[in-house]
Amino acid sequence: MSGRVYLDWNASAPLRPEARDAMIAAMDVTGNASSIHGEGRAVRGLIEKARAQVSDALGAAGADIVFTSGATEAAALACAGRDLHCAAVEHDAVSAWCHADLPVDAQGHVSVSDPAHTALQLANSETGVVQKLPEGIAVCDATQAFGKLPMAFNWLGADMAMVSAHKLGGPKGIGALALRQGLDVTAGIKGGGQEMGRRAGTENVLGIVGFGAAAEAAARDLANGLWQEVAEWRLMLEQALEAECEGIILLGKDHQRLPNTLSLIAPGWKGETQVMAMDLAGFAVSAGSACSSGKVSASRVLLAMGYDAAQAGSALRVSFGPETGRENVLSFAKAYAKAYGRAQNRQKQAGLALPKNKTG
Amino acid sequence: MSGRVYLDWNASAPLRPEARDAMIAAMDVTGNASSIHGEGRAVRGLIEKARAQVSDALGAAGADIVFTSGATEAAALACAGRDLHCAAVEHDAVSAWCHADLPVDAQGHVSVSDPAHTALQLANSETGVVQKLPEGIAVCDATQAFGKLPMAFNWLGADMAMVSAHKLGGPKGIGALALRQGLDVTAGIKGGGQEMGRRAGTENVLGIVGFGAAAEAAARDLANGLWQEVAEWRLMLEQALEAECEGIILLGKDHQRLPNTLSLIAPGWKGETQVMAMDLAGFAVSAGSACSSGKVSASRVLLAMGYDAAQAGSALRVSFGPETGRENVLSFAKAYAKAYGRAQNRQKQAGLALPKNKTG
Repeated sequence: MSGRVYLDWNASAPLRPEARDAMIAAMDVTGNASSIHGEGRAVRGLIEKARAQVSDALGAAGADIVFTSGATEAAALACAGRDLHCAAVEHDAVSAWCHADLPVDAQGHVSVSDPAHTALQLANSETGVVQKLPEGIAVCDATQAFGKLPMAFNWLGADMAMVSAHKLGGPKGIGALALRQGLDVTAGIKGGGQEMGRRAGTENVLGIVGFGAAAEAAARDLANGLWQEVAEWRLMLEQALEAECEGIILLGKDHQRLPNTLSLIAPGWKGETQVMAMDLAGFAVSAGSACSSGKVSASRVLLAMGYDAAQAGSALRVSFGPETGRENVLSFAKAYAKAYGRAQNRQKQAGLALPKNKTG
Repeated sequence: MSGRVYLDWNASAPLRPEARDAMIAAMDVTGNASSIHGEGRAVRGLIEKARAQVSDALGAAGADIVFTSGATEAAALACAGRDLHCAAVEHDAVSAWCHADLPVDAQGHVSVSDPAHTALQLANSETGVVQKLPEGIAVCDATQAFGKLPMAFNWLGADMAMVSAHKLGGPKGIGALALRQGLDVTAGIKGGGQEMGRRAGTENVLGIVGFGAAAEAAARDLANGLWQEVAEWRLMLEQALEAECEGIILLGKDHQRLPNTLSLIAPGWKGETQVMAMDLAGFAVSAGSACSSGKVSASRVLLAMGYDAAQAGSALRVSFGPETGRENVLSFAKAYAKAYGRAQNRQKQAGLALPKNKTG
């Protein structure tokens, strides 16, 4: 879509050229990785090369990498039937399998009492808030952090971690579960003995190859400091919005966050309406996590952080990456401030006093 | 691999140019199909176009098509927790969830007593044997039949059917479950509400797009009679092998079979050794289903058909498609007959009389 500014990287990042090239090359390789003939061995070679790329990028030397159809499937593999606890700020793919009863403060910080029975995200998809992982955490959802924050699975102190390709520029529909050596999981999808018996089914070879190439490129960009500039643009955006949009609440502002994520509440202006207004203005942003077709409701994450339903229904997430560029972030700030002003005027004309909210 | 002849289509068919082109075009479309902005809607459009293509090719108008990571995951969705019965000739992905206790005859025909509690394949991956589906069958594994046999989900009389993209020239790692309208399944992978709540996780957009394009092209080729020629080549191959390889047993020969599949037992010559010998001679063939990395054991399918362990361990499957061409099938027949003769000589020299087997 030409002329558009895509600021919804946390929903899905643009495909990296390295992933594109690797996938197109792999399209010429015919065969099933389980076959013992030359063609099968060539496919197996592609998969194992990508596994090493993901392992290296994730700092997971010695750990096992199990390829899955995404972080959602990896979460099921890691969490199902284990009676784990989590906070309500976790992604639905995690909380679906856990008791979502851990306390969360207004900055999004989760208090963990029993790490060995807890699933905890490294970074939140909506607010970007980064958690300090206690040693020995059972499951870490590293989906949003991988590729955006310097991290290594082997330093996290977690037994397992989920990651996804399309959040760092790989294709959609492929992810992985990293497992500390010696640990195991029960296959949820049974049949052939693929992935060392942990995940049956003919491997998504193009997806795996794209994931490997994207992970390698993402780790290189991160090491080269490309995301430091992203953090500067986010700061610039925050300052512009605070100056121009009186009454907005910036979320998790005093907490460590992903460098690319800005989350706000615009009191009295529905998140969905904000998204549609910005879409018409040429910007793709989000009212929260993009995880459920057509679902537009109050952000569960914000409710867990103590905001009320009206506030949680008036949230906006802006997320971008190194390709976005300073100018596009600035042009969003201007367009949003203008739309915000119009929305305020409509509220005033409708006789609604603009609520004076706490700034958080 | 130049100069090679790929005769392992039932393990994985070569990627069709239509699928390749559609996937490359879709690589430029950024976004998450669950997002409500323009980019998200464009991705949603790609998915729904592919769903219609698969539905049309499968003759499933009005039925629901749920995209999964392959037929293996679709089998779990269809069969898990339902106390179904099947025969031991079913794929591991089906039998893993069923009581594999239905009788099978020497031609591979399965006797069904209670269709409503039975999972039955339309065609067997190893022998190509086609089953007559009784009306009201609970689950049909159409993975190998789809694209090779004229069929329509709506004529099968089945409640559900699994299919896979890479068996008909789509990418690996994507498949679908077709469901009669009004039926439902319990999601095995939970989280976001994708696929109408039946299968969570950000969709494998490239895989889905490639599946749609491949299914459409496969249905067109089938309607244009391209697989009739394939059946002629298979007959030619059978006749050549029967003439040149005394003692081989052709499987399911008197039964309706997929047009592209030839399965045989070469008594006294291990299937794995046959595959490696033919691999060295430039031909990719299989000793059975390619479903489990490194697993080489007696064919469970042949054991179920009443062959003994030595026979079931001496099986070979040759499977091809319209692209293969008559000349390549003929050159395989010659190379195999030569290798078979050498293997017989080695057996004789080792003082082993060549067993005189029944021809089946």
